[in-house]
Amino acid sequence: MNLPSKVLETAVNELSQFPGIGKKTALRMVIHLMKQPEEAVGSLAKAIINLKTNLQFCVTCHNVSETDECDICKSVNRNKRVICVVKDFQDCISIESTGQYNGTYHVLNGLVSPLDGIGPEDINISSLLRRVIDNETDEVILALSATMEGDTTAFYISKKLKDSPVKITQISRGISIGGELEFADEITLGRSLIGRVQVG
Amino acid sequence: MNLPSKVLETAVNELSQFPGIGKKTALRMVIHLMKQPEEAVGSLAKAIINLKTNLQFCVTCHNVSETDECDICKSVNRNKRVICVVKDFQDCISIESTGQYNGTYHVLNGLVSPLDGIGPEDINISSLLRRVIDNETDEVILALSATMEGDTTAFYISKKLKDSPVKITQISRGISIGGELEFADEITLGRSLIGRVQVG
Repeated sequence: MNLPSKVLETAVNELSQFPGIGKKTALRMVIHLMKQPEEAVGSLAKAIINLKTNLQFCVTCHNVSETDECDICKSVNRNKRVICVVKDFQDCISIESTGQYNGTYHVLNGLVSPLDGIGPEDINISSLLRRVIDNETDEVILALSATMEGDTTAFYISKKLKDSPVKITQISRGISIGGELEFADEITLGRSLIGRVQVG
Repeated sequence: MNLPSKVLETAVNELSQFPGIGKKTALRMVIHLMKQPEEAVGSLAKAIINLKTNLQFCVTCHNVSETDECDICKSVNRNKRVICVVKDFQDCISIESTGQYNGTYHVLNGLVSPLDGIGPEDINISSLLRRVIDNETDEVILALSATMEGDTTAFYISKKLKDSPVKITQISRGISIGGELEFADEITLGRSLIGRVQVG
């Protein structure tokens, strides 16, 4: 692309570094920005910088937070005796939006993946184990993805906690709500048969 | 979406104002930014602000430029006696990338569109007419889109310039290179028949 100005070119290059955004989309974004008032562009730039300067990770659960301890860990309305273990903070957002959970979280910031050279010491597992031992914990819910990495991580955590009295659970896996049996893959369907629950 | 922090929420809202970018994509972009080093995020923010502070429009052709007069208008290698009239500066980028054009441009910044209340006085037509009259101009190439608005604008400009000795041309319309006849719409095909050129 032959851009008429270095300023344009820099902006297009910067924006096309986002995943899934190519040069053409970046140019469309730049054109959109050029049509905005100066204040709007300034507030976008500020919001972007704030991400790095005003955000940190909660010392307890490693969720993103604006303070040392995140709002969920600080809240008196959350059940501190239940810890839901998730891969990253996006999973916290997903679980929070269900409105079905009132405990706390522990963000691993990754999953054990021997193939990628990620071991248990590379993610926030030791702080989880310390948290479970140091505080009165009733239940650890493993809300990890149904992949080899998720299963490996879940297995590792369960093994490490097997001598403690804490209850370890895993989110249920099976057919999606609204999902048709005929479209479910055989592994999911097999698992949902094995994991069947009594209803009557 | 329940975001765990106001800073995150602001950034997601700002980014989702881009056309075609929803909250989920904006969140993905924010997560990408959070993983970048502080300098990278700073340089993105700076590139965005520069768009408003360091870019202006060329006084001659209205193309985007970092100086009063754009690089094309300043260049001694471009033929100043040929002016290609385009709708916006993106069209300049498209034509420049063909490598087939060595003249100058005139960016109208819109097209005459009575239905949208845009008249000839709302776009850069008067400066084009002045340019053609004040300077020695051999040819005005109308490179406008093949729509009602493009045709209306082209007709208006041709009419205004009909008493001047300048040659007025229009980019050819017809079947795209590599296009199959059976997939061309009937209007394009009809026009390409009318606009046939002798080859032997």
